[in-house]
Amino acid sequence: MSGPVFTAQDHLMMSRALRLAERGAFTTKPNPMVGCVLVDGDTVVGEGWHERAGGPHAEVNALAAAGARARGATAYVTLEPCAHTGRTGPCSRALVEAGVARVVAAMRDPFPDVSGRGFEALREAGIEVVDGLMEAEARHLNRGFLSRIERGRPWVRVKLATSLDGRTALANGESKWITGEASRLDVQRWRARASVILTGAGTVLADDPMLTARLGDDTPFVAPLRVVLDPGLATVARGRVREGDAPTLYVHAPDVKPPRQLDAQVAPAPVKGGRFDLEAVLAQLARDHQANEVHVEAGATLAGALLGAGLADELLLYVAPVLLGARARPLFADLDIASMAERLELTQVDARRIGDDTRLLLRPRAG
Amino acid sequence: MSGPVFTAQDHLMMSRALRLAERGAFTTKPNPMVGCVLVDGDTVVGEGWHERAGGPHAEVNALAAAGARARGATAYVTLEPCAHTGRTGPCSRALVEAGVARVVAAMRDPFPDVSGRGFEALREAGIEVVDGLMEAEARHLNRGFLSRIERGRPWVRVKLATSLDGRTALANGESKWITGEASRLDVQRWRARASVILTGAGTVLADDPMLTARLGDDTPFVAPLRVVLDPGLATVARGRVREGDAPTLYVHAPDVKPPRQLDAQVAPAPVKGGRFDLEAVLAQLARDHQANEVHVEAGATLAGALLGAGLADELLLYVAPVLLGARARPLFADLDIASMAERLELTQVDARRIGDDTRLLLRPRAG
Repeated sequence: MSGPVFTAQDHLMMSRALRLAERGAFTTKPNPMVGCVLVDGDTVVGEGWHERAGGPHAEVNALAAAGARARGATAYVTLEPCAHTGRTGPCSRALVEAGVARVVAAMRDPFPDVSGRGFEALREAGIEVVDGLMEAEARHLNRGFLSRIERGRPWVRVKLATSLDGRTALANGESKWITGEASRLDVQRWRARASVILTGAGTVLADDPMLTARLGDDTPFVAPLRVVLDPGLATVARGRVREGDAPTLYVHAPDVKPPRQLDAQVAPAPVKGGRFDLEAVLAQLARDHQANEVHVEAGATLAGALLGAGLADELLLYVAPVLLGARARPLFADLDIASMAERLELTQVDARRIGDDTRLLLRPRAG
Repeated sequence: MSGPVFTAQDHLMMSRALRLAERGAFTTKPNPMVGCVLVDGDTVVGEGWHERAGGPHAEVNALAAAGARARGATAYVTLEPCAHTGRTGPCSRALVEAGVARVVAAMRDPFPDVSGRGFEALREAGIEVVDGLMEAEARHLNRGFLSRIERGRPWVRVKLATSLDGRTALANGESKWITGEASRLDVQRWRARASVILTGAGTVLADDPMLTARLGDDTPFVAPLRVVLDPGLATVARGRVREGDAPTLYVHAPDVKPPRQLDAQVAPAPVKGGRFDLEAVLAQLARDHQANEVHVEAGATLAGALLGAGLADELLLYVAPVLLGARARPLFADLDIASMAERLELTQVDARRIGDDTRLLLRPRAG
């Protein structure tokens, strides 16, 4: 048994399509990012990406760019072309009508209205279809969208900044500027691609963050929903978390009555043993807010609880080259590990230097 | 004002000389590592390095390899050629006698018997001499030797292994295998280049380490002296630290009488406020044991004390992609930082992946 054989050019073109797809990272949500490259022989005749939910799909943009040169071409797409008629016409039909000869896809669309039917429509029209090229890369790109569709919950990224000795703040709470300016700007880009920026009431009270994405230029982005987990709605009287050009949602305990005339959304969520049922909260964010990626910027308690519960899908860790000492505040509370066998192992996905800091992207290993 | 102008070939040849010098990392101590490349036009006619104290110097080895082709050549040397007659004849005379036309050196030898006199002897014989090419790299290579000669104390490297959350062991002390096999093998190479492997009595009692360099092959090395800081000589009755093919030294408080017939060296060192005067201990190691690099593998207390006292010159940190939780043991004790202004800032010298771990080499910034 062996899968389809892909050439170096296939890989090159799919890499290009993935790069194009990623241009939509800040704007396509809740839709997946998709890129398309049309190639005739070894010439790129058109390319496009999906920029915004409600706008044209990647294939349509690429076909428009190629015009008549699409006839006989190969289309590289990072996701199965759609077969349903959503807000735009089905892409599979557009590819057929343009006379494309071959479609190479990175992966199937897991969305129930599409899954396999896009490929089917193409094959029925006599187009050669192969899929699975750079599927891992395509899945990584759309891990948020895929998590929501396949698991019914968002992809959860826990962002933390730490000293070399695993401290986030001094004992007195002083924490400003552990990491450098380059890291703080980098964080803004991770915020911008998220559907939701999640924090806890403790962080709102301690740091009063605004939690908007501030990219420092006019790069367009769909502002993430700011979500504050605040069982007793203790923080609604104050807070920069309602300032700026982004919506805010307070999640509260079911028995708490929200104040009238609050300039923010509110939603009750189930509580178990005095704490939010975090799995239920995440499911709500996926269902009610189409949240693909949830970017968590919170204190040691919420970060530790998400990791401890196996609900953190990735850890974005900025390590600053400083030491804060043993009395300083630890990276995680509520992460109580009694034996080496219980230790939480992670896999490093990416490591790079950001200014003077080191940025690690890690995934907990399946336990 | 401008220094000498060096060509790309100059840099290339000096890089080669530095690489050759480094081959002596495990064997030249207490001598500096030195490499030499002899170049005629753009042809390397001979190269050599200093392999072992008492053995021929780099220049002598390179001249022997070049033979008559050394005449008119340029000699690239990572350190000023010696002018004194030590255990081998002076290298400056050998270069003159071989008819070398030009000498390019990375740096002066800070050793009082040489400093500048090697260059002087060469110039007097009509050889063109330039120095300062890749001096920073040459100083980094011989930071141990230079520290001993220039500061009267060894270069101190503190090696630590930590989880992502800055923990070295669980609360119960369990610490085996935080880092992976690749990291543990890498550590052996850092041990092998050290003059001294330093630890504390607490580590001997808790982990009973052997502290020899086990390279896993027959690479030759001069076995580092194992030094245990043990004020009351509480650990001499036991310990793998006296096993294996390397000497051991116990440093004890002045008022403690060493047992007779101990198969190890002992030395008293001054105590201040119930603790060793670490600066004095290091000075002793430089003076009495010609220690260039001291490689510290100890617990949070000694590591923290060295860092806190500004006596740690570099931190070799292996970060394993695991989380151990907030109750686990911290990286440093005795490092008490009250305000952000007091935090200990470091500069990253090197970062690389070792197996699944990340290895960081850092230097505390001058305070």
